[in-house]
Amino acid sequence: MNLKEHIRVIPDFPQLGIRFKDITTLLNNGPVYKEVIDTLADHYRDKGIELVAGPEARGFVIGAPLAYALGIGFVPIRKSGKLPGETIEAGYDLEYGKDKLAVHKDSIRPGQRVLIADDLLATGGTISTTLNLIRQLGGEIAGAAFLIELSYLNGREKLDGIDVVSLVQY
Amino acid sequence: MNLKEHIRVIPDFPQLGIRFKDITTLLNNGPVYKEVIDTLADHYRDKGIELVAGPEARGFVIGAPLAYALGIGFVPIRKSGKLPGETIEAGYDLEYGKDKLAVHKDSIRPGQRVLIADDLLATGGTISTTLNLIRQLGGEIAGAAFLIELSYLNGREKLDGIDVVSLVQY
Repeated sequence: MNLKEHIRVIPDFPQLGIRFKDITTLLNNGPVYKEVIDTLADHYRDKGIELVAGPEARGFVIGAPLAYALGIGFVPIRKSGKLPGETIEAGYDLEYGKDKLAVHKDSIRPGQRVLIADDLLATGGTISTTLNLIRQLGGEIAGAAFLIELSYLNGREKLDGIDVVSLVQY
Repeated sequence: MNLKEHIRVIPDFPQLGIRFKDITTLLNNGPVYKEVIDTLADHYRDKGIELVAGPEARGFVIGAPLAYALGIGFVPIRKSGKLPGETIEAGYDLEYGKDKLAVHKDSIRPGQRVLIADDLLATGGTISTTLNLIRQLGGEIAGAAFLIELSYLNGREKLDGIDVVSLVQY
């Protein structure tokens, strides 16, 4: 299955010069969406992973079904101010812009093996902030799963020593 | 399984007087999260449903795995400005505050049977806006699935004639 055929490239969104990879066309196709989740789940099954963590909002459409497929819990990583309980926070630079991410303090116990999931690995800003938050809580990073990797942005270098899987590369 | 035991109530979030139902404690528990999705999927299986649509961001953690479990596509309903393609939009009042939702014009074909999913049915503002967007695109509402229903807010009245399922009521 050629997943790239199901991803739509939209020029100049959200800024001039960005060629945005729109995954909504892929999500819209049941068998293709299922294949994406199953392929990621198959790779990480039987590796003792206890939780999947994903940053809002597109990370949820990969991370949540991946957690379900693996039969494990999902930890939402959210923008500052969205989580109702006690959180820790960290700032980061986006491919375009700046933001702050937060996680509930009690969402990960020290030593738990956590798989990070997102739709896209670009510069790695979002994902290395997610990774830092999880490590601050004592979690162990068991892998990082992406639908898309923008290889030319070298985000993978920020994930040194981690079992990284991406299904589509640009 | 008593799902209520896994939902944490946080007083005065995001505003004084709101008793926020925090589902992150439930999502964190793999078997409980799986039970939630499986129960909803079992109810709507074999009903000819072609797509699940869910509003960001918490609607994604119910809607996306539900679409995966049913083997069908997922349509993200997003805040204004987040979707890269051509959209239609509609404004709505929240339980607290106001907002605008958008959907890609080409995400639903006329006559497609769409299941709406969200974490919480409160006043029904978010969900009736979602419903209106889907109907504007010619979609047929095949059901509305919620983890939680705040029965005292009567949101169900806005979903007259629709097959509504909620797993936990307050």
